[in-house]
Amino acid sequence: MAPSRAIFATARTALRNTYPTTIPAQRRCISAFGYEQAKCLAIDKLGEPKDVLRLHGHSISPPHGDLLTVKFLASPINPADVNQIQGVYPTKPAFTTNLGSSEPIAVCGNEGVAEVIAKGGGVKGIERGDWVIMKKQGFGTWRTHAQTTADNLTVIKNKDGLKPEQVGTVSVNPMTAYRMLKDFVQLKPGEWFIQNGANSGVGRAAIQLAKLWGYKSINIIRERESGTQEMKDELKKLGADVVVTDKEVESRGFRDQVKEFTDGGREPIRLALNCVGGSIVNAMAKHLASGAHVVTYGAMSKQPVSLPTGLLIFKDLHFDGYWVSKWSNQNPAAKEACVSEVLDLTREGKFADIPMDPVKWEHNTKQDELVHAVQGTLEGYRSGKGIFVFQNT
Amino acid sequence: MAPSRAIFATARTALRNTYPTTIPAQRRCISAFGYEQAKCLAIDKLGEPKDVLRLHGHSISPPHGDLLTVKFLASPINPADVNQIQGVYPTKPAFTTNLGSSEPIAVCGNEGVAEVIAKGGGVKGIERGDWVIMKKQGFGTWRTHAQTTADNLTVIKNKDGLKPEQVGTVSVNPMTAYRMLKDFVQLKPGEWFIQNGANSGVGRAAIQLAKLWGYKSINIIRERESGTQEMKDELKKLGADVVVTDKEVESRGFRDQVKEFTDGGREPIRLALNCVGGSIVNAMAKHLASGAHVVTYGAMSKQPVSLPTGLLIFKDLHFDGYWVSKWSNQNPAAKEACVSEVLDLTREGKFADIPMDPVKWEHNTKQDELVHAVQGTLEGYRSGKGIFVFQNT
Repeated sequence: MAPSRAIFATARTALRNTYPTTIPAQRRCISAFGYEQAKCLAIDKLGEPKDVLRLHGHSISPPHGDLLTVKFLASPINPADVNQIQGVYPTKPAFTTNLGSSEPIAVCGNEGVAEVIAKGGGVKGIERGDWVIMKKQGFGTWRTHAQTTADNLTVIKNKDGLKPEQVGTVSVNPMTAYRMLKDFVQLKPGEWFIQNGANSGVGRAAIQLAKLWGYKSINIIRERESGTQEMKDELKKLGADVVVTDKEVESRGFRDQVKEFTDGGREPIRLALNCVGGSIVNAMAKHLASGAHVVTYGAMSKQPVSLPTGLLIFKDLHFDGYWVSKWSNQNPAAKEACVSEVLDLTREGKFADIPMDPVKWEHNTKQDELVHAVQGTLEGYRSGKGIFVFQNT
Repeated sequence: MAPSRAIFATARTALRNTYPTTIPAQRRCISAFGYEQAKCLAIDKLGEPKDVLRLHGHSISPPHGDLLTVKFLASPINPADVNQIQGVYPTKPAFTTNLGSSEPIAVCGNEGVAEVIAKGGGVKGIERGDWVIMKKQGFGTWRTHAQTTADNLTVIKNKDGLKPEQVGTVSVNPMTAYRMLKDFVQLKPGEWFIQNGANSGVGRAAIQLAKLWGYKSINIIRERESGTQEMKDELKKLGADVVVTDKEVESRGFRDQVKEFTDGGREPIRLALNCVGGSIVNAMAKHLASGAHVVTYGAMSKQPVSLPTGLLIFKDLHFDGYWVSKWSNQNPAAKEACVSEVLDLTREGKFADIPMDPVKWEHNTKQDELVHAVQGTLEGYRSGKGIFVFQNT
């Protein structure tokens, strides 16, 4: 932060404390929410999170016209956020000097839930106290506060009984699972699908949605040194019909096992979901019915999908991809309906949260702690999904 | 051929010569077409063509009831026929002892045109002199004569002005090109597609059909030691808009070239056809528009299609395959319409033959010569598509 801006911010803080009483006529609009002291995790260049992420402070003036000010409640750390910082993601974060930095910076994070704390006189259909999520990616959600216009936000119509962590994670993982199960093959109740990375956020969402819709799932997890059986049990509790390890799938006996699951092969498997890549995709593809679709949404193994031509020509398999950001940008109304449906299920206790590893973000939380949480997601040493939970900011 | 059958065949031959006069009441049905001395290229086990293909002689009795006897005019040697003999094709040839062999044998070849030379009293809607093609693959077309029922045949309604070589090669290559251009992306006139293996039978058909339908084509051929420019000129004469070599496609400047062709990138390329596999597919994919389809129908390089995950997820490319045999079996009416349309174009001089290398098959042609022709297709040392043309059989 440039020195001049620091002074500016201090001046605003002072002003904030006096504002409500000195200009009482505007009290209703500004009330206790005058100038906000905001902080955000931002970058001024692409790179490894630990090298480029900085905590930046700035002030936000009272909203006027069609502006509103929101205070973030919970913002997850998704792998795509990290890839975006590294510069290996197709959309780049938006760099700006609007936040008072001397050089252009971009606020990171793409998903989250915030509460409206103040609004300008021109804002309609959205009230103080409403919870909102971002309509599109690229908003920058790793921040305590933001000022924006209503067209960037989707109001959560019914937040009763929901935790910020639940609303703040509904737009990416459950949405991805939902659309992949619905948009590529028209599965009928009783039909099977197969997926790898089944214990991922998307995988868990797919298991639960499939169960609710009557689809049956074969779920592949990575064989691990310990805890494999516990993971199998956990996914079965969520509603998985079959859970197997990658080693089991690539073993000789798996064909017979699949036959057994699918009534001697009479129940075709017409859909596969892939977030791993590499040889496991081919192992899955062998068990698919002619005409099936393999939908890729991730590449955890960093291996490409390598297709023996016979699978394409003679087995008539179709290989597609799903990118939730693009889908959401192109289908705002469908996204809203989908969010609302998943949140209803969550409220009714029919859709369990993914395991989370919350990172408390308070007014005085140090930069190192926040950056460490992001780097941890990248290096996979967290026990669940990292999520910033804002308190006393 | 078992000795007993050889004797039997000789007996039938003798009978044939006397039949019309000894049973004059049936003359109209049997007429000069009594017992036919047929020959076929057949196998009794899978393997390399040169090791397993044998010329087998047998006799065909006069047709009765719903049977009819056809005499083949022209039958091409397609790569898939060879793969089927080798056992590396998903459908196996049908083995039978109905042709008088002591062990079950299968007649090879899947495409061809024949003339009806005799029919039983129960056959309707098909007459002596009609030209027919096979409704499905697996008929066995490398034979001088066959006896079958009408449901296995499609009558060529108008053979005027057509050569047997043209009708005998309409079901595989032009059909593949036709369906791939129509069934995956709805191209509008003026839109581009890109294909590799552009000088193949399918490639040439695609160039010509595209030209007729107003689509523009970028055609990739293999860089060769000599004759590259001649091949480019030849394909341009057929209607190709752009012809480039694989080396040129994988070079740095190609992106700029594509931009130039496509009006600075404003004309998206939404369809790619692939019969090669390997790295050229990725090189093609780079120039495709978001949402485009890559349709695979062959694997001349024997390399798989290896897909960087980003192409699937972020570029939303779809990878599909096309298998003409399966399509034809599932869509008999559409196939007939498509054949008829292509033959009309051929008759009008709007659809040029692929370069062919005819192999004359006469009554006394030796087994070695026929087997050599098949092996030649496999080893690629023929100057055009190998096609058996039957004369005096």
